[in-house]
Amino acid sequence: MADPFSFSLLDTCSGTKARRGQIATPHGGGATPAFMPVGTAASVKGLSPAQVKDTGSEILLANTYHLALRPGDDVVRDLGGLHAFMQWDGPILTDSGGYQVFSLCELTDVDDEGVTFRNHIDGKHLRLTPERTMEIQLNLGSDIIMVFDECLPHDASSDTVRRSIYERTLPWSERCLDLHPGDGRALFAISQGGVHAELRSEHLDAIRGSPFDGFAIGGLSVGETTTRFREIVAMSTALMPTDKPRYLMGVGSVPEIIDAVALGIDMFDCVLPSRNARNGQGLTFEGIVRLKNSCYAKDARVIDETCTCATCAGGFTRAYLRHLVMAKELLGASLMTLHNLTFMQRLMSGIRGALSQARFPDWREATLAMWGDGRQ
Amino acid sequence: MADPFSFSLLDTCSGTKARRGQIATPHGGGATPAFMPVGTAASVKGLSPAQVKDTGSEILLANTYHLALRPGDDVVRDLGGLHAFMQWDGPILTDSGGYQVFSLCELTDVDDEGVTFRNHIDGKHLRLTPERTMEIQLNLGSDIIMVFDECLPHDASSDTVRRSIYERTLPWSERCLDLHPGDGRALFAISQGGVHAELRSEHLDAIRGSPFDGFAIGGLSVGETTTRFREIVAMSTALMPTDKPRYLMGVGSVPEIIDAVALGIDMFDCVLPSRNARNGQGLTFEGIVRLKNSCYAKDARVIDETCTCATCAGGFTRAYLRHLVMAKELLGASLMTLHNLTFMQRLMSGIRGALSQARFPDWREATLAMWGDGRQ
Repeated sequence: MADPFSFSLLDTCSGTKARRGQIATPHGGGATPAFMPVGTAASVKGLSPAQVKDTGSEILLANTYHLALRPGDDVVRDLGGLHAFMQWDGPILTDSGGYQVFSLCELTDVDDEGVTFRNHIDGKHLRLTPERTMEIQLNLGSDIIMVFDECLPHDASSDTVRRSIYERTLPWSERCLDLHPGDGRALFAISQGGVHAELRSEHLDAIRGSPFDGFAIGGLSVGETTTRFREIVAMSTALMPTDKPRYLMGVGSVPEIIDAVALGIDMFDCVLPSRNARNGQGLTFEGIVRLKNSCYAKDARVIDETCTCATCAGGFTRAYLRHLVMAKELLGASLMTLHNLTFMQRLMSGIRGALSQARFPDWREATLAMWGDGRQ
Repeated sequence: MADPFSFSLLDTCSGTKARRGQIATPHGGGATPAFMPVGTAASVKGLSPAQVKDTGSEILLANTYHLALRPGDDVVRDLGGLHAFMQWDGPILTDSGGYQVFSLCELTDVDDEGVTFRNHIDGKHLRLTPERTMEIQLNLGSDIIMVFDECLPHDASSDTVRRSIYERTLPWSERCLDLHPGDGRALFAISQGGVHAELRSEHLDAIRGSPFDGFAIGGLSVGETTTRFREIVAMSTALMPTDKPRYLMGVGSVPEIIDAVALGIDMFDCVLPSRNARNGQGLTFEGIVRLKNSCYAKDARVIDETCTCATCAGGFTRAYLRHLVMAKELLGASLMTLHNLTFMQRLMSGIRGALSQARFPDWREATLAMWGDGRQ
């Protein structure tokens, strides 16, 4: 183990709330703003760890829920933890499982101590509590642990959200903090409150003074309007400590990421770039190349001639990639994911470069104009 | 284009009929005995061309039937042929589509001119003739073209097989020969005859004098006994020219390959090593590691400690690979295929090394003893 977790602020934008920083963890560092690829079941779908590294990705996300069910966190622990298990030597952030319990399980029964659920693999009843999620994340050997939170539907009423915060998410995160070994790995809080600004504010007031190593925004980008999304992000970052990283969970799209960076977010994760890759959507700075469109059937160009990923530099044409996607060939998923994750890292690198050169507002305007509505 | 097709015999075994040779093609060479990975739809499932090369594979097989249906041989032609399309610069052998027409199609209607069938992708009626299969293979830019043949069920009667040979496979292969451009690429004949030794003999007598560049055995390893398999292979190679390569189509397993090499076969293709890889079966010289068995759930060893493939050398444990296979993660298919194809090339390299050192019979005995019944 190298360094304990730390966060250094390197540049702040004068025109927006954007910031550039550097995270250190026991398994190496990561430049921020950062996009973290999702390795749900201890694998970024279709890529080897070496390929993930080749995309420029530094921090990986893995899922507590999925790994606890299969192969089991005890198995991963006995095999030396997630880093050894999946042969990834960089930083790993693990979510707490709260989100999956609510999104994937057939039946959940929430009480103030935790959640009992029937899992999506074999239907067995399992129990997740703050204690259990900490145990799992410690067994996995996570570098950045997330607290256990209650996730609610985005149309939950103000009363329901308030009760959830005070009787569950808040006491649960305190219990996670009590169980945190303080051995150099980080524990991040998750702010909830749905689209209710006053509840977001109350919750953040309650946790901002606690010794968490970072602060996340949960429960956003679930169907709310862009205006509301921006309002919530802006008021949340305004209430978060400036000297700790801010993580917007599950976001997102190119415009969302650029917007959220301008509002002071440092970290992102999202399955979209890899999921859409498997569906034949290639990301470029000029929008999305949708390979399923028949216009690409004989297109001898690579996805993006300015890209140096193994897919574009390797000469794999849109026509060939389209063929692989249409024929459901595994190689299509690999080559497209390699490209899209490389694109995401080029995007983040562009953001950081603009911040270090104090020209982020101009970069943002030009990049969003080039992106347009995302269609090529 | 470098060299025209040629075959050089380098060593012959004094104790068996095994031989070592070297094939040259317009896209480079291949040492024999050779195992050719199958890239059905212009991709070895789960591997990039660079990874296929890393396994030590030299000649790739692609499927006329699949590629003619999707993306279309005209599309591949317009994009520069299969080598440019899939970014594989080594030799490519294409089958003629005859086998798939019989194994995959819902409805086939065979006449003496060709086959009309309803294809397995969209059910449309299509027609395959000797002329059309040659056109497809030339559009694909194949280095080694196979003649169009009629494939029969392995329990076809002697009368049916005889009629098929004389009225279809034989005249069809002559028509393919007439259409062969003689531009440096090879055209291989396919001997049929089922398990009827006298028909195999008659067919080979009829074609052995024709200017084919190689001779294949079709319609074997389809359920016949090991004894009958060996008899047919032995009598077939005995009737084939010694100065041309002999290709046993669709074979096979480790013992079958070793047996067939001893009977004078030079080339093999089979989907089993890659298909079984995706099912979690790892090949080693001591047999098959069946990762779905729960005994591997915590096995911290790599599949084969003597293997230098990226999977074994990369430290991916049996436990992790088992997890990937159980969770149906794409990476599991890639890592396992990488290992199994590397194993197949180590097997072939072992065969060639033993032949060049005049110790093939001993090598064969030791290797089959180590393999046992294939179970670890």
